[in-house]
Amino acid sequence: MSNTRTQWNVPSSAIAKRAHNPIRQIVDKLKLDPQATKTFISLSVGDPTVFGNFNIDSSANDAIIRQLHSFKHNGYGPAHGTADARQAVADMVTLPEAPVTANDVVLANGCSGALDICVNVLGNPGQNILLPRPGFSLYGSLAAIRSLESRYYNLLPESNWEADLAHMESLIDDQTCAILVNNPSNPCGSVYSREHLQAILALAAKHHVPIIADEIYCDLVFKGNTFYPMASLTSEVPILSVGGLAKKWLVPGWRVGWIVVYDQNNVFEQIREGLLNLSQVILGPNSIVQAALPDILHRTPDQFYQDTITQLEENTQLSMDAVSKIPGLKPVQPQGAMYMMVGIDVSSFEGIKDDVEFSQKLLAEESVLCLPGECFNYPNFIRIVITPTKDRLEEAYQRMAEFCSRHHK
Amino acid sequence: MSNTRTQWNVPSSAIAKRAHNPIRQIVDKLKLDPQATKTFISLSVGDPTVFGNFNIDSSANDAIIRQLHSFKHNGYGPAHGTADARQAVADMVTLPEAPVTANDVVLANGCSGALDICVNVLGNPGQNILLPRPGFSLYGSLAAIRSLESRYYNLLPESNWEADLAHMESLIDDQTCAILVNNPSNPCGSVYSREHLQAILALAAKHHVPIIADEIYCDLVFKGNTFYPMASLTSEVPILSVGGLAKKWLVPGWRVGWIVVYDQNNVFEQIREGLLNLSQVILGPNSIVQAALPDILHRTPDQFYQDTITQLEENTQLSMDAVSKIPGLKPVQPQGAMYMMVGIDVSSFEGIKDDVEFSQKLLAEESVLCLPGECFNYPNFIRIVITPTKDRLEEAYQRMAEFCSRHHK
Repeated sequence: MSNTRTQWNVPSSAIAKRAHNPIRQIVDKLKLDPQATKTFISLSVGDPTVFGNFNIDSSANDAIIRQLHSFKHNGYGPAHGTADARQAVADMVTLPEAPVTANDVVLANGCSGALDICVNVLGNPGQNILLPRPGFSLYGSLAAIRSLESRYYNLLPESNWEADLAHMESLIDDQTCAILVNNPSNPCGSVYSREHLQAILALAAKHHVPIIADEIYCDLVFKGNTFYPMASLTSEVPILSVGGLAKKWLVPGWRVGWIVVYDQNNVFEQIREGLLNLSQVILGPNSIVQAALPDILHRTPDQFYQDTITQLEENTQLSMDAVSKIPGLKPVQPQGAMYMMVGIDVSSFEGIKDDVEFSQKLLAEESVLCLPGECFNYPNFIRIVITPTKDRLEEAYQRMAEFCSRHHK
Repeated sequence: MSNTRTQWNVPSSAIAKRAHNPIRQIVDKLKLDPQATKTFISLSVGDPTVFGNFNIDSSANDAIIRQLHSFKHNGYGPAHGTADARQAVADMVTLPEAPVTANDVVLANGCSGALDICVNVLGNPGQNILLPRPGFSLYGSLAAIRSLESRYYNLLPESNWEADLAHMESLIDDQTCAILVNNPSNPCGSVYSREHLQAILALAAKHHVPIIADEIYCDLVFKGNTFYPMASLTSEVPILSVGGLAKKWLVPGWRVGWIVVYDQNNVFEQIREGLLNLSQVILGPNSIVQAALPDILHRTPDQFYQDTITQLEENTQLSMDAVSKIPGLKPVQPQGAMYMMVGIDVSSFEGIKDDVEFSQKLLAEESVLCLPGECFNYPNFIRIVITPTKDRLEEAYQRMAEFCSRHHK
């Protein structure tokens, strides 16, 4: 063996350089102008807990406390989750058309951790994965970490953010390891129809490409819309569906996610083994929360879920009403989740060349932060998170209106 | 684009195939012989909570409950951990010789998650990493996942499991990305002297190779021994030290780990950035536990730590006394942690060809499970976990003695 190093030189790995998550990097490093006189209002983070108006049901806290007092759930469980916790998830997500059991569930550290495992199990370096544009930035980061090529299929704002199917199909080749579908969508707030999901599944079936269904916003859909689990619409296409406590139960910080394997034709035999292998690296979410999971999933009162939806619907209405009146802005009606995409007619503004500059100036001048579409690979839009309290939303839109009038040509 | 697939064929990725953790795989899939009449006694899992005699201090539960009731810590914090939680770790691990601040701490999902990030940030595919033999099997799994070559340096049972320094040095070359040192050691239960750690550091300095110090068992050392944090013994060698709540606070299931960057000469500039990038994939441990971390680390009564050590010392004494009397077995005196390695004189047994067969037959005939040294890359030893209750330990050693007499030549 030989070593020719004569001084300290410790570069970070290529993986560490590639692993950056643009949204988290913006959020973690965000510093407000210390001169700002207006209070800061963030419409940027997909975290419903920030403003105190969306709280987990106290019955969930009680379930945690019961488990703490037992002193029985502080140790290691199986790496992919305890049998009881996996059973609780299975009971919730099993479908008449696609039944699952505890053996089809793998727990993970948040939905991010679940997505990480899904991408890792399906993709080899040099392959490609189909991702939505606009879409959640973590998808691209996970692909980059794995040296997978991200191929972005367009979503069409004029068609309720449906996927451009011809474009999607044109991206598929022998090296396509998966199509990732996010429904309901972050950042779009769209909820796909049964027909559109079936059309995507038909493409997947035609080309024999499995689906990763990011369904973390599963039941957060507004009146008049229906959420269809992708797995309920196919008997052929194998699907890894990911979900978690973060959004529906309003505890993103708890880091509890899961993968559900829907695979009626046993296409995923190797994938199941791979999921178990990969889960053994990190060993799953906190054991106390796992122990409380059956109660959280099955004994949280219905009213809690209804209250969440009602509040989101009201905030959506308020947001649509306010933003559609602002010159130069064009909101797209959300149907679920916690987001609203707003088109910016850049040509109608003076001195604002794109969405990033719009967001920067809005923050600098009005202390209101929205993420630019750039964060989601979709320029000339901004994403608004609609979970703040109504008075904060109204104040934010008021400032946004003043900002836009000031800069309007 | 072209796609020639005409049927479903979904292989798992190479990474998923490589990601298997031999210990977890044995533990997760372990099935006892249903015919067994003796109660099952496991001396196999490094989980002190299994038998009810090692419990987290109730003040830690109280700290968690206070945070739950606040409803203020359910959301996302910074991906590498909240400032308060990182400060609490920094206050605990800062050294006069190597001071650190909250900025030098990255929280992770358990010590496994911390190790995963450390290996990922330092190593590129094709490089190599020096690992102890015997050693914790996760190290090799993490290296394999990253396509790093694992080069095992020998530990010497006759010298208190110290590293064979000449062997270690012979393994270092230009492609060596790190030396991993585990002190106190799993599976050895050894605690290194100041002089031995300095000798390892001298090698690292000579060859300019950074150290990953797995110090998860940091303060679990028995009377007459002293734990020296590696970072306290060098001003030159940059060190990533990993720790967590799992062992010292007896909550391995909580999945709270951390990385502390000791880097007095700013060699790790890229590494710091890479650690932040990598932490953004999984977003750190449970937010409620993070919020309680300052109280857990700084307000747990001293008596709790003392009681843990006392119990471990008593169990070690009991184990040494019992096992050294069994013909064919040769225990090595532990100085810390929760483990005892026992040499097996295979030649003195009839029909037992190695450690794996010893463990299998012991389980089959006596319902006592110890992991074979094979799990730690070290044949002809078994590892005994010394955390069960005294009556269980005595019963297990009694059965082990009968088993050995029965098979002794």
